[in-house]
Formats: sequence, structure tokens, C-alpha cells
Amino acid sequence: MHKINIIKIGGSIIDDHQKLELFLQQFAQLPGKKILVHGGGKLATRMAEQMGIQQEMVEGRRITDEETLRVVTMVYAGYINKNIVAQLKAKDCKAVGICGADADIIRAHKRDALIDYGYVGDIDTVRIKAMKRLLKTVDTIVIAPITHDGAGQLLNTNADTIAQEVAKALSNDYKTQLIFSFEKAGVLLDVADDASVITKLKPKMYKQLKKEDRIFAGMIPKLDNAFAALKAGVHRVYIGQAEHLPDLLEGRCGTKIEI
Amino acid sequence: MHKINIIKIGGSIIDDHQKLELFLQQFAQLPGKKILVHGGGKLATRMAEQMGIQQEMVEGRRITDEETLRVVTMVYAGYINKNIVAQLKAKDCKAVGICGADADIIRAHKRDALIDYGYVGDIDTVRIKAMKRLLKTVDTIVIAPITHDGAGQLLNTNADTIAQEVAKALSNDYKTQLIFSFEKAGVLLDVADDASVITKLKPKMYKQLKKEDRIFAGMIPKLDNAFAALKAGVHRVYIGQAEHLPDLLEGRCGTKIEI
Repeated sequence: MHKINIIKIGGSIIDDHQKLELFLQQFAQLPGKKILVHGGGKLATRMAEQMGIQQEMVEGRRITDEETLRVVTMVYAGYINKNIVAQLKAKDCKAVGICGADADIIRAHKRDALIDYGYVGDIDTVRIKAMKRLLKTVDTIVIAPITHDGAGQLLNTNADTIAQEVAKALSNDYKTQLIFSFEKAGVLLDVADDASVITKLKPKMYKQLKKEDRIFAGMIPKLDNAFAALKAGVHRVYIGQAEHLPDLLEGRCGTKIEI
Repeated sequence: MHKINIIKIGGSIIDDHQKLELFLQQFAQLPGKKILVHGGGKLATRMAEQMGIQQEMVEGRRITDEETLRVVTMVYAGYINKNIVAQLKAKDCKAVGICGADADIIRAHKRDALIDYGYVGDIDTVRIKAMKRLLKTVDTIVIAPITHDGAGQLLNTNADTIAQEVAKALSNDYKTQLIFSFEKAGVLLDVADDASVITKLKPKMYKQLKKEDRIFAGMIPKLDNAFAALKAGVHRVYIGQAEHLPDLLEGRCGTKIEI
């Protein structure tokens, strides 16, 4: 079975030109098939402000109304995605940049919740055949966190979830490694101290840490995603710093999630 | 030799929701391999205005400065490209939307002219191998008019020229039909009268009409592109109304360019 790396890169790296450059340099050099799933960073928010679009928030979460969907589609699938692709080529890595609508690869539905989050998509299927066909033409795919419902509607979709669903879908055909990379050194016991990284996290410890309120709230969905991925057949999951990608992939830093 | 249609769709169709819908309906139903090259319409200009970006003009031509490049990348490669892809899927046509940077398919250089047009790209090469590989995975490719220089710089590139260069590059391997579709019925003798369409245009007549100043100035680069394409091996070139695509492809309306 061939190996494939599915790497999610977090928002604050996208916003930091130097860190992004360093990450892309390392990513470009990874051998074999690889998929980069990127978030959007603060650019979409800045763009919306510049355009005078009001950001509607409900319970601390941004609502993706029609105008916001337009902005995130432009920023994620246009500006960020194509700049990453062009940067990768400059580092000798040919990539195809897509969103979930391309080749109908990621199908989602508009979230059905008590709160109307607007045009937010929850993933139904990753079309593995289409993904595999595309991976035959290029070694590297860059995915923007926009999906569609198959009936013409684009949807704003969480990049962590896309990475996890893609990794799961590919794990029958590839030995998949899923990496959540961001600005922190890994899963931390003390969010302010990069030295407090947990090198290995298993379900029992995770449960205990959650109980003791020692896991940073923002990390919980990421970790739930990570455990779910392993249970669904993903070979390895790492969480750690984007600028140390090669070490992270070798298990020399960051947090290894295990079941 | 298999047939392939390369269809350029003009800006004013992009701006007209109903016309675009009708065009995409017809485009989706075309059998075989097909490539849609889209312009940007007025959305980029509106977006720049909304963001308070000054549009610098020199001799009636827009300069693509850094801010404008950012806007066109977002609007063309993000918003328009991904919405077209999602709309096509809703009409049972699976497409992959790309720009020239994806898979390093269209390489260009920053225009070297007396006037500095900014980040405007003149095409050097269409990488035919990459294009053919992509055409093996999907029947339909949608191309946004953004290219790159291979060294990390995205470039704003004329969509007519992209369509022509792609058609030329594919004509060794496919029987290529190049269609410039827009809001007019074809090449007109009287720009205000759709009934004045020239059904067949050959170089001699073109030369004569240009001499008599009877060709609308905006049409001249399109026609130069059309003749150049035929000389370079493109099988057929048609110019006509986007909403009559099937008739246009059968030569039942519009202008057929011949050498």
C-alpha cells in the first residue's frame, strides 16, 4: 500500500507570510502523494470588513450568510488556494488546487441545526474514485474548505473536518497519515507553554484531561476528529507545529494520537 | 482523433444570471471532452470599488497592480470559477475548475511593454502533457483567466488568448473546435444590428473590412486570435451568441472563421 500524507494547515500560519513560506518549502519536498487542506486565516474577515459586510455572530460563531459565502469562496478557493499552488510550483512541486465542488469530490449538505449557521456544509461523502483519479494525474492536491451540495450551492466547510474525512476516505487504498499542523507545538497541558506538549495521547488520557478541564476548548473538536479518523482506519494522526513538518512526520515532535 | 470543444464565454454573459444559466445548461449537455474558459465580467470592478481600491487606467487600459491582482484572483479563480463548477454539477456535468498555475498548466511571463501593465501575463507555454492527463480524469475543465510565471507569481491573463493557446496546444492530439461566445450574434457588419452577422469570414474579407474600418475595434484581437488558431492547426473556429451554443457548434448561426 502506498503512503499518503493529508496535512491540514491552520489559519494563523496562512496569515504569517514567513511561516507559510517555510511550511510550503518543507511540504513541497515531501516525497509521494500528498494533500494539503488549508483554512482561511483572518484574510476573509479583513476582506469582509473592507467590503463593508457585517459579520453576523450567533453564540460566538460566525454565520455564513450569502455575502460571507461569497467572500470565503473568493478568499479560500481563489486567493489562498491559487497562491499556495503558485508558491508550490516555485518550489518544484506541481499541485492542483481544488475545492469540494471540483469533480464533485466532496458532497455536503447545508447544516441542519437549531441555530441557522447559513451556508455551512456538513460533509456527506468524499467521492473516493474521483479523488483517486485526480491523484493519478498529480502527486499533490491543495484543497480549499469550500464544498457543495451537488445542486449548485457552494458551502463553507470546516477545514479540519475536510482533512479528517478525506483521510478516512483514502484509508482503504492508501496508508494514510493525517497531520493537523498549526502554530502550537502540539496538544499542550498548558496552552501558554509550548514545552508542555503531550507527546502521545490515548483515549483514556484524553477523557481524563477533558474531565479535569485541562484540554483547551478549541482543541476538542480537532481531537475528536483525530480519534474518529484512527477508528475509521487512518494509519497515523499527528498534531503539531507547521514549521517542523518533517520532524512531525517522523514523530520527533508534536503529539501523536493513538487508539 | 477525438473531438474537443474549447469554449470561451464572454464577460457580459457572466454578469447575466439568466443567460449564464442557459449557457451552462447547453454547455453541460455537450458530449465528449470540453473546456470552458471564462472571463471575469464586471464583478471584479465592482468588488474593487466596494473595497475602495482605485483602478489605475493608462490609455484606456486597466493596470493590474498588486491589489487588483488580488481581486481578480479572488473573483475569477474563486467566486466565478467555483460557482460555474457547482452549477455544472447541478446539471450533471462534473468539471474541475483550474487556473493556469494548477498542475503548472499555463506558464506566462509578466508583460514586457513600454507601458507597465502590472501583473499581466503573456503566455509562454500550455503544458500539453499536464492538460491531457487532467482530461483523462474529467471530461470537463473550467479555466479561470489567471496564469503564473512558475516562480510563484500569479498573473492576470486575457481569456481569449488562453482559449486560443489551449486550442492550439491541443490540436495535435484532438480535433479542436474553438468557440468565442458572447452576447452578440457573431461578427457584425453593423455593431448595433444582430441581423448583420457575417456567416463566414476569410482573411481576404477580414483585411478588406479592417481597411474600410467596418470591424468593431474590440473584435480585432479576437479575430486575430481566431485566424492565428486556424493557422496553428485548430480545426474550426466559431464566433457567436452564448445562448445559442448548440446551433453555433453546428454552424447554424454565428460567424465561421476560415482560412
